Amino acid sequence: MPRTKKRRSAKTGLPPGALIHIGERHAEKAKITLCEYDESRFEEREIHTLEGALQPPDKEAVTWVHIDGLQDVRLLEQMGNVFGLHPLTLEDILNTEQRPKSEDHGDYLYVVLKRFHENGGALVSEQVSIVLGPNWLISLQEKEGKLLDPVRDRLRNGKGRLRKSGVDYLAHAILDGIVDSYFVILDNLGERIEDLEEALVGRPSPETLLTIQTLKREMLLLRKSVWPLREMIGSLARSDSPLIREPSVIYFRDVYDHAVQVIDTIENYRDMLSGMLDIYLSTISNRMNEIMKVLTIIATVFMPLTFLAGVYGMNFKYMPELEKPWGYFALWGVMIVIAVFMLIYFRRKKWL
Amino acid sequence: MPRTKKRRSAKTGLPPGALIHIGERHAEKAKITLCEYDESRFEEREIHTLEGALQPPDKEAVTWVHIDGLQDVRLLEQMGNVFGLHPLTLEDILNTEQRPKSEDHGDYLYVVLKRFHENGGALVSEQVSIVLGPNWLISLQEKEGKLLDPVRDRLRNGKGRLRKSGVDYLAHAILDGIVDSYFVILDNLGERIEDLEEALVGRPSPETLLTIQTLKREMLLLRKSVWPLREMIGSLARSDSPLIREPSVIYFRDVYDHAVQVIDTIENYRDMLSGMLDIYLSTISNRMNEIMKVLTIIATVFMPLTFLAGVYGMNFKYMPELEKPWGYFALWGVMIVIAVFMLIYFRRKKWL
Amino acid sequence: MPRTKKRRSAKTGLPPGALIHIGERHAEKAKITLCEYDESRFEEREIHTLEGALQPPDKEAVTWVHIDGLQDVRLLEQMGNVFGLHPLTLEDILNTEQRPKSEDHGDYLYVVLKRFHENGGALVSEQVSIVLGPNWLISLQEKEGKLLDPVRDRLRNGKGRLRKSGVDYLAHAILDGIVDSYFVILDNLGERIEDLEEALVGRPSPETLLTIQTLKREMLLLRKSVWPLREMIGSLARSDSPLIREPSVIYFRDVYDHAVQVIDTIENYRDMLSGMLDIYLSTISNRMNEIMKVLTIIATVFMPLTFLAGVYGMNFKYMPELEKPWGYFALWGVMIVIAVFMLIYFRRKKWL
Amino acid sequence: MPRTKKRRSAKTGLPPGALIHIGERHAEKAKITLCEYDESRFEEREIHTLEGALQPPDKEAVTWVHIDGLQDVRLLEQMGNVFGLHPLTLEDILNTEQRPKSEDHGDYLYVVLKRFHENGGALVSEQVSIVLGPNWLISLQEKEGKLLDPVRDRLRNGKGRLRKSGVDYLAHAILDGIVDSYFVILDNLGERIEDLEEALVGRPSPETLLTIQTLKREMLLLRKSVWPLREMIGSLARSDSPLIREPSVIYFRDVYDHAVQVIDTIENYRDMLSGMLDIYLSTISNRMNEIMKVLTIIATVFMPLTFLAGVYGMNFKYMPELEKPWGYFALWGVMIVIAVFMLIYFRRKKWL
Amino acid sequence: MPRTKKRRSAKTGLPPGALIHIGERHAEKAKITLCEYDESRFEEREIHTLEGALQPPDKEAVTWVHIDGLQDVRLLEQMGNVFGLHPLTLEDILNTEQRPKSEDHGDYLYVVLKRFHENGGALVSEQVSIVLGPNWLISLQEKEGKLLDPVRDRLRNGKGRLRKSGVDYLAHAILDGIVDSYFVILDNLGERIEDLEEALVGRPSPETLLTIQTLKREMLLLRKSVWPLREMIGSLARSDSPLIREPSVIYFRDVYDHAVQVIDTIENYRDMLSGMLDIYLSTISNRMNEIMKVLTIIATVFMPLTFLAGVYGMNFKYMPELEKPWGYFALWGVMIVIAVFMLIYFRRKKWL
Repeated sequence: MPRTKKRRSAKTGLPPGALIHIGERHAEKAKITLCEYDESRFEEREIHTLEGALQPPDKEAVTWVHIDGLQDVRLLEQMGNVFGLHPLTLEDILNTEQRPKSEDHGDYLYVVLKRFHENGGALVSEQVSIVLGPNWLISLQEKEGKLLDPVRDRLRNGKGRLRKSGVDYLAHAILDGIVDSYFVILDNLGERIEDLEEALVGRPSPETLLTIQTLKREMLLLRKSVWPLREMIGSLARSDSPLIREPSVIYFRDVYDHAVQVIDTIENYRDMLSGMLDIYLSTISNRMNEIMKVLTIIATVFMPLTFLAGVYGMNFKYMPELEKPWGYFALWGVMIVIAVFMLIYFRRKKWL
Repeated sequence: MPRTKKRRSAKTGLPPGALIHIGERHAEKAKITLCEYDESRFEEREIHTLEGALQPPDKEAVTWVHIDGLQDVRLLEQMGNVFGLHPLTLEDILNTEQRPKSEDHGDYLYVVLKRFHENGGALVSEQVSIVLGPNWLISLQEKEGKLLDPVRDRLRNGKGRLRKSGVDYLAHAILDGIVDSYFVILDNLGERIEDLEEALVGRPSPETLLTIQTLKREMLLLRKSVWPLREMIGSLARSDSPLIREPSVIYFRDVYDHAVQVIDTIENYRDMLSGMLDIYLSTISNRMNEIMKVLTIIATVFMPLTFLAGVYGMNFKYMPELEKPWGYFALWGVMIVIAVFMLIYFRRKKWL
Repeated sequence: MPRTKKRRSAKTGLPPGALIHIGERHAEKAKITLCEYDESRFEEREIHTLEGALQPPDKEAVTWVHIDGLQDVRLLEQMGNVFGLHPLTLEDILNTEQRPKSEDHGDYLYVVLKRFHENGGALVSEQVSIVLGPNWLISLQEKEGKLLDPVRDRLRNGKGRLRKSGVDYLAHAILDGIVDSYFVILDNLGERIEDLEEALVGRPSPETLLTIQTLKREMLLLRKSVWPLREMIGSLARSDSPLIREPSVIYFRDVYDHAVQVIDTIENYRDMLSGMLDIYLSTISNRMNEIMKVLTIIATVFMPLTFLAGVYGMNFKYMPELEKPWGYFALWGVMIVIAVFMLIYFRRKKWL
Repeated sequence: MPRTKKRRSAKTGLPPGALIHIGERHAEKAKITLCEYDESRFEEREIHTLEGALQPPDKEAVTWVHIDGLQDVRLLEQMGNVFGLHPLTLEDILNTEQRPKSEDHGDYLYVVLKRFHENGGALVSEQVSIVLGPNWLISLQEKEGKLLDPVRDRLRNGKGRLRKSGVDYLAHAILDGIVDSYFVILDNLGERIEDLEEALVGRPSPETLLTIQTLKREMLLLRKSVWPLREMIGSLARSDSPLIREPSVIYFRDVYDHAVQVIDTIENYRDMLSGMLDIYLSTISNRMNEIMKVLTIIATVFMPLTFLAGVYGMNFKYMPELEKPWGYFALWGVMIVIAVFMLIYFRRKKWL
Repeated sequence: MPRTKKRRSAKTGLPPGALIHIGERHAEKAKITLCEYDESRFEEREIHTLEGALQPPDKEAVTWVHIDGLQDVRLLEQMGNVFGLHPLTLEDILNTEQRPKSEDHGDYLYVVLKRFHENGGALVSEQVSIVLGPNWLISLQEKEGKLLDPVRDRLRNGKGRLRKSGVDYLAHAILDGIVDSYFVILDNLGERIEDLEEALVGRPSPETLLTIQTLKREMLLLRKSVWPLREMIGSLARSDSPLIREPSVIYFRDVYDHAVQVIDTIENYRDMLSGMLDIYLSTISNRMNEIMKVLTIIATVFMPLTFLAGVYGMNFKYMPELEKPWGYFALWGVMIVIAVFMLIYFRRKKWL
């Protein structure tokens, strides 16, 4: 968490509905993209104000407003007026430390969730808000990104169910795309875990531990985001709001299954990382054992020998052994016997 | 826990409803502030008795009594009579070791929760009680503090919904302010955790461990307070009491979301601290390994050499090597070979 | 668990309802105290048989039979006949290893719970049974104790609600007194934990660990007793038995809140003890590090020096350095340089 | 698990209801005991076939068939035909790796649970099945044992409720006897835990750890069996099957309470064992500290002294100290000063 | 996870229902086996297209289509058309990283689960899908295997209930076979755990730890698959779909019990492995203690002796002891006394 970021505590003492952008600023200006489509046509244009955005020529068409960048508070206020959003919804859109949730406001559904991407090896999250009305949808993203390009491509080429299926199916398509993006993240993490595993079998270093801890924290980050996401999608699938029509429910249930799969994978990786931490710690402790063994073997072999050498280095007047011509060689013999005996002892103890 | 504080066990053997102040005494005298307001006016004055406090000129107006300091038991009894509070409610107000809860007494709602502030680096908690009647509200605080100043400011300048929205919205505003104050605490803790992280990557000392444990305990303290807080706000939002009117419910739900966010942050910090503890312990163990390695290398290199020096320091009459002119230099050669061999061995073992 | 105590397995093979006292015998003879009271009067006498005990002159009066000591099985059988208790209730009263519970037998409620007191530093528990009838109450205690004196005092002096409020309020008063006694225990434990904390910051010894473990076990003991207690009081407060009248329910809810507070404190202490265990273990490991450092510094400084001394103690015929007049002093110089170099190295490694 | 035992995987690929005995074979031949009783009479005889077993002279009498040994598959098939049991019930009876459960088959209730006894210090479990019909009961046991003797004795002497109370009360009596047998096991385990505790305070050895682990595993074994047992008895007590009549329900609830007590004791023992494991590990680590201290003290005292002795053992031509008559004694003085200084240092560090 | 496998992230950006095979490709071509049977006949043939597969001569007969290999996407599309399957069902069949689940699509039930087999010591999982229609069933398997041979054999020889009992009983038979196959896996794992236990009591090596971790991970893998499996079978047994007829429900409940048994065994093994990890770690730490003891004993005995030898090797002019004829032998005596004293000390400390 860089300290330059505007923190949540900045809002202390302000009334609810006070529109203050919490989080990092990513762009100079918000970019608004307006799409209108029905089964037969698809129009896309960039606009600069939301006034008049909600007058589709016919009622069947779907209006999709996508906004990149949240820092323009006045734009959001305008949006609130045009689409009739509750002030608390606007506040939630701006507070980018939301936990994934969906809220049924009667006239519209408000859905907020996190999207992750990797940036220079680190996981970066971004808040995505979706407001789903009867025949319009607003999606808001912190940074300009390519998140929604695949959905727009599918709209453009008009294949599949997307253009025929109403605005709730569009909401599903966006959610589905975001949940799918978790699989990309997880596959990358999976590869890093595999690399780590190889490093662990080879020669673990203190860096290995740091990597394990980093991966663990990223798992926590993902997990913290995906559990409420699953809950949220489940509540959409079970929702009795008329905004989610019967034929779309099965697709929301499908996204729900994907979210469960994401959670399963995360839990699996977490378990693997825990096991790797155990192996790491026990490797460290084995290595300590090994070091101690070497020290003990050397010390235990040489201390008695050095003692004996010391004894026959003494300057007593009367030391009978010193006078014998065979004394020196006999001592070498004794010392070799002692050393061999020690080594046999260590071999027995399985230290060698 | 200073031992000078009056403890909960002081009440043993007393009948329920016995009014005894449990906790530390913070002020000499309670301070009572009375506010009366409706959409068009706002009056605020300090009063000294509650008798006659509840006769607002018109029924539309909201009466808000705020009391700083709980030690004046007779004042509380008077309050109980004037506002018709149950003796158990008065007892709960005085017992400052309450867990956050809300109680529906039919005529009024009783809400109790904790507020935290930092005092010289340590977290200090204070109990806040709110009694919500049909058009009056009593708030009680252990110490005189600036907790409610922002709310009063919003009442004074009359902007926003606060003056128009009835006494339940006032209750919401107070709760919202307290929950927001948790974010301030958490941002401070977050910075301390970041500092700790840097210390850990640098050179962890036993003090690092103490800091981790202190932060962990503060997390526990907050957590113990916020979990029932969330539950309590949730029960207010779901409450069917007529004292909380329909338009306010969405605001209580908003505070509920904030409480969930607080819990998420706390759990996140706890996980981070656990990871840091693991890193600390493993750093200690790595350092031990490093120390052992140095010891073993030195001992393993010098013990054989010292032994050889000892051998040729012996005083045997017949030691052929000693006689040779090249003996001394040959031994130096042998010793250097042994040392180099040892160092190569350690290099292979990756100890060097 | 002293082995002299009659254990639960003594009942194996006996039919249900077989009256066998499980637990330690505490007194020679049971002591029966009979109290009769209504709003205007209070009579208390010691009796020796229960026959005829249940004929109150008027129906409004409350009859309270208190029995100290459970070993008189025939007395209990008589009690069962007089008050119409189910054999299983009698069996439960005698089996002092019950877990706190309440049972609604239609005509009466049976409540069993544990009371703790400290005896020579150790926690001792005692089982208390309460049988609540329409206008009578029986309370049974393993040992003669002062548990119920405060309640009796309140009855005697006739102040407060107790004498006016019927037999269910008497049951509440007894339960409240027992729950309050947990706070006394917890305050004592809290002080022992504070002392332990100071010991830990000072110089932890293996005794510190034993104290932590003892406190942890006492927490477990309390916890095991309080969790079902809370549940039991909660079920009384929600009970639809006519024996607990509407105005008393709020008082049972109050006791329930106290039980929750007891649990919170216990959980808090448990977390503190866990943190202290971590600190203890890490202190041990730090001390080991310190010991190893001293050893390594001494060995690393003196081993090379001793080697050099050994070299110049050798008896080779031709050792040029020995002949030089400055040889001895040069060697001292070399040795001092080596030692200083080592100390600088350790200073760099932050070992000094 | 001895490998000679027939394992569950032996049934792979067979249709459900295939009667294959899973488990160890304990007896050569099954032994069938038939009891018929009503309030006034009790008949008991050993029979060899079940044909015609179910024709009681009058409808009031209870028929109790007890079978020791499960290996006779044809006998079980016959039993299935005579009593109208579902093939899956027969399969469950033979599969002795069942988890405790009860099944309501409409005409009869099928109950399966585990009984434990100690055999040479190890816990041995045995599966007991009970089939409860309208006025008959079949009980099946893996090995011939004395499990049901107390029940039969109570039937024989005709005291108590057993003979008067119908076949559901008989089922209760059997269940009650089995749950009581857990208390015997637990009291034995409790004594072993006390012994272990004494060993731990004395001199813990690696065997202590093995004992802790063995006891932990036995706790797990019991726990795994008692949790579903509790659940199962609870479901019987709540059952709406006409086979369990109203007056018996309270007795089943009583057995339920006993099962809860068993679980409480097991959890308590588990916590104690965890605490003991902590103490054991910390004792090991303390002992390591003690060893290291001795080593460090010895090495730290003698290394400088040995170095000094080495210095004055050198053969330099010019070493002025050697020439002084007081040199030798001065050196002893210096060495004693060094040693005393070291010991004072260690005393300060509390190592001595 | 080999990196050559097509990963789940390959589907990112595609619309739901896009048929892409996720997982490893196992076979060149799918193999389709068609079975038709009723009580009186059984026909089995291999077919190459599904067109016309669903025209059974009479409505009573059951049609069972079994497909080995999922890589032929067009075949699956054809299957979807012929049997009227939802595109999401087809997508789920192809995505082999599904978690076990069942889905009621009204016209058919879709069931997906995992089957495990051992391949070269490692657990390999395979996804099996079952689609159950009114009188037809499709089963799909990733690899050609012998999974369904026992079911087909039972159909062929026409014994037992299988041919008489409708298509839901066939679904049960397949599920039952798969759950039974878990017991085979678990028995193998059980034997490996027993072997590990012996290795642990003998001489644990770092490989022991790796084996424990491998087994733990396999347990996790199984557990991750069996928990949702149990849930899924339970939901089938409770299902109100007309596709599962009343007489089959009891058989699904039986499979449910088997799944619970599998879970119990897995949890049991996990607990055993945790205990073994504790024993392993404590053995390592004991061995370290043992090594340290040897080192300390040797060093503590020989350091003082070497010091003494050094002292009498000094070259002071005046050292009175050196002159005495008994000096040398007296020193030996002193040294032996010191050594014996040390050994007695270590014996007291129980180090010897």
